[in-house]
Amino acid sequence: MSKAKVIRAKGYTWENVPVREYKNEGNHYKDITRQTILGEGEGEEAVNSITRYFEIQPGGHSTLERHEHTHTVVIIRGAGEVILEDRVEPVALHDVVYIAPDTFHQFHATGDEPLGFLCIVDRIRDRPRLPEAEDLNRLMASEAVAKRLKV
Amino acid sequence: MSKAKVIRAKGYTWENVPVREYKNEGNHYKDITRQTILGEGEGEEAVNSITRYFEIQPGGHSTLERHEHTHTVVIIRGAGEVILEDRVEPVALHDVVYIAPDTFHQFHATGDEPLGFLCIVDRIRDRPRLPEAEDLNRLMASEAVAKRLKV
Repeated sequence: MSKAKVIRAKGYTWENVPVREYKNEGNHYKDITRQTILGEGEGEEAVNSITRYFEIQPGGHSTLERHEHTHTVVIIRGAGEVILEDRVEPVALHDVVYIAPDTFHQFHATGDEPLGFLCIVDRIRDRPRLPEAEDLNRLMASEAVAKRLKV
Repeated sequence: MSKAKVIRAKGYTWENVPVREYKNEGNHYKDITRQTILGEGEGEEAVNSITRYFEIQPGGHSTLERHEHTHTVVIIRGAGEVILEDRVEPVALHDVVYIAPDTFHQFHATGDEPLGFLCIVDRIRDRPRLPEAEDLNRLMASEAVAKRLKV
């Protein structure tokens, strides 16, 4: 019997998908939750990529970090800004953000409503790395990044 | 320099992403277009999965087919129905459909507006296979499938 299925959405939650803390440790993020929709559940072992949904409340942000694996991000709620190394870009509904290898990135919910996005990653991937002092110096040389960045 | 970028959406099209025919051959589909948003462009070689957007006009449908690779489908426009082997399931906004290996599947835009969905697949994947007569006999044993199926 096929393991195919429909995982139904209700608002910005999904059937039988728990809303979790973004991370278990650290204080380099704010007001953000994580839902792993597809790829880590029973019967989903054949999926090579994992689909997660992150939601950031107004004023909140994700961790500034980088890694060798890529992210495919699709905005499905609200709007905001993303730091991509030395740039700050606005993001809005259905924009697709490509996080290339080794790129420092941080999402910010800058509007009045939550910023929600799908984030697709490989099942097998390296751990994110936080910035060192020299990384921060380099990124902060950009005035736009210096104004937006939260660490 | 990082190859990270924002691919901006405008309606249900994306900046510099052409709207293409769904397939180049066959007549086992109807009123459907394809946009490959991320993974096949220049500078996107590090992405292991490809993000496409398909849109089916009211009354249209995709090909009934199966393959060993999986699909992660996210509905982002309209509503419709999907055949998953011997079942027919409704799909609506933000539902996630897991197409497991070797599962015959076909999407239908059954409402008054287009059915649009993201479909994420591995870069390296097998070719889809069409049903043989015996497959059709098996699937059509389901009354719901027999009513919905288009070949």
